[in-house]
Amino acid sequence: MDEVYDSIIIGMGAAGLAASLYSGRYKMRVLVVGKEFGGETAWAGTIHNYPGVKDINGYDLMKIMKEQASELGVSFKEGEVTSVGRDESGCFKVTVGETEYASATIIFAHGTQRRRLGIPNEKELTGKGVHFCVTCDGPIYGGKVIAIVGGGDASVKGANLAAEYASKIYLVTINKEVSAEPINREEMERRGEKIEIITENTVAEIVGTSKLEKIILKDEYKGTRDLLVEGLFVEIGASPDAALATPLGVALDEKNYISVDNMMRTNVPGIFAAGDIVNHFGSFKQDITAAAMGAVAATSAYEYKKINGDVCGLHYVTSAAVTGVTS
Amino acid sequence: MDEVYDSIIIGMGAAGLAASLYSGRYKMRVLVVGKEFGGETAWAGTIHNYPGVKDINGYDLMKIMKEQASELGVSFKEGEVTSVGRDESGCFKVTVGETEYASATIIFAHGTQRRRLGIPNEKELTGKGVHFCVTCDGPIYGGKVIAIVGGGDASVKGANLAAEYASKIYLVTINKEVSAEPINREEMERRGEKIEIITENTVAEIVGTSKLEKIILKDEYKGTRDLLVEGLFVEIGASPDAALATPLGVALDEKNYISVDNMMRTNVPGIFAAGDIVNHFGSFKQDITAAAMGAVAATSAYEYKKINGDVCGLHYVTSAAVTGVTS
Repeated sequence: MDEVYDSIIIGMGAAGLAASLYSGRYKMRVLVVGKEFGGETAWAGTIHNYPGVKDINGYDLMKIMKEQASELGVSFKEGEVTSVGRDESGCFKVTVGETEYASATIIFAHGTQRRRLGIPNEKELTGKGVHFCVTCDGPIYGGKVIAIVGGGDASVKGANLAAEYASKIYLVTINKEVSAEPINREEMERRGEKIEIITENTVAEIVGTSKLEKIILKDEYKGTRDLLVEGLFVEIGASPDAALATPLGVALDEKNYISVDNMMRTNVPGIFAAGDIVNHFGSFKQDITAAAMGAVAATSAYEYKKINGDVCGLHYVTSAAVTGVTS
Repeated sequence: MDEVYDSIIIGMGAAGLAASLYSGRYKMRVLVVGKEFGGETAWAGTIHNYPGVKDINGYDLMKIMKEQASELGVSFKEGEVTSVGRDESGCFKVTVGETEYASATIIFAHGTQRRRLGIPNEKELTGKGVHFCVTCDGPIYGGKVIAIVGGGDASVKGANLAAEYASKIYLVTINKEVSAEPINREEMERRGEKIEIITENTVAEIVGTSKLEKIILKDEYKGTRDLLVEGLFVEIGASPDAALATPLGVALDEKNYISVDNMMRTNVPGIFAAGDIVNHFGSFKQDITAAAMGAVAATSAYEYKKINGDVCGLHYVTSAAVTGVTS
């Protein structure tokens, strides 16, 4: 007999955890499944811009959200969802390893896969000089020298914002030139030499023990491969992975993010999505927006459950009866 | 000479304060003006459902957001905005008392006016037995007897949610019967006697010193006017006040909330709106959604300012030069 839930939330970052908190308050039986606790936020180092919480480590912020949900009886399981199906009665079947769980609703909140350089020290020094979001962490580097690796619009916007703080920004791109929206390109040009573009080059090594000390470029620039920076921002994009959703008939937008309406409903009844996996607020993807979308998705799932709550039959688990699930 | 800002934010609740935090991080010159610090949230008593913050007094949550923005140089002024105009160059003029402030952008974040009963003890016991949001505060009353005053769909939805927690709910309506969406009405009927409807009656008195002790009905019910409840939820609606926005040509939706797109842009360039004054997430209005919308509105104002930042001329105030403004 499958364990049956009102809602299974896929993803353990800000969106998924906020969704689970609200679902728990709606007294829904909820399971949160995710590959890695805390999602992207757990990687972020100190978070300065979450309204209502002064400087906090991203991992700690996620821990608080999880505790809030756990206290309401939400169950958590670390593991990779390998497939989501739906039986003829409309009940969803979520496979995690060898186990299948049943649920009346699904909330996709598993974010995007942020592209990384894939070189040593990138993960180890994340939050200690290595960052992935200028909007989030740029202001730390007041009066400092930093580098941004990228070349697309996000990296140019990031450089412009960083120029409000940093004394010098190297923008390193593998391409022959940066490509950005005209408005952002013009603004960068107005910044003059504060933003120095290094083309047809990239970061080969990240050097540092407890914090970033320097980066080493792939090719020489002005006679040396060493670039002495205190901060490195990797802005080479992120890709949504909607492979679990599309077999269910969930529609994607033109950039392959899951399409939702304002209430975080997908085109498929019973399926909701929140956080970085949707483009609801365009490219603006922050913890505060992810958490809000999670709360909205939970609310929509609750409304849906009022009508379709028994599609999986009545073999509900209670918290005590759940096996193989940590809460 | 007017004091000139990049953005003037009208409203000091979760939306306005979160907007000011993000605007401050974008290094914009920002003034936040509001009638009452903390907005609706300051009235809310303990907040249990703000993701990332365990039980916290609403006023304290707002204080943290304000501190986060103050540290970034944002200025605050308590006062009522009496008008917002725009000169021929496109510069907004915001009048507060005798003073006029100029700004390149406006963010309306002044929420709604929640309807109150307007009887003694209603304000004094808010958060101490008297509440205005079942979604927010309902779970406090596990196993307790509560009353909800209302009669519309929100009160019926509230009663259904409260039924997950409370042992007994009196739903008091001034009308001959409650009116609600069929789905919510049916759910209420399934709850049976747990939800008891008292029609053509209302709450005449709220009794209690440090906390709610009982309510007194206007007319006798089952032989007495006394109703012994530990919680009273006032769910008689809220009205948006877009009187400042409409003279500027800002479009409203069919319920008189300000219309915005997903990026919190109104139909008028340079004017943004966030929080309860918009219906972006339908009737779901929470601190977490207000804060997210504020962050988005600030981001859109920043994008707008890149192009139109100098509409008010270059007579910028610096934090030190601002007079009559508390920061």
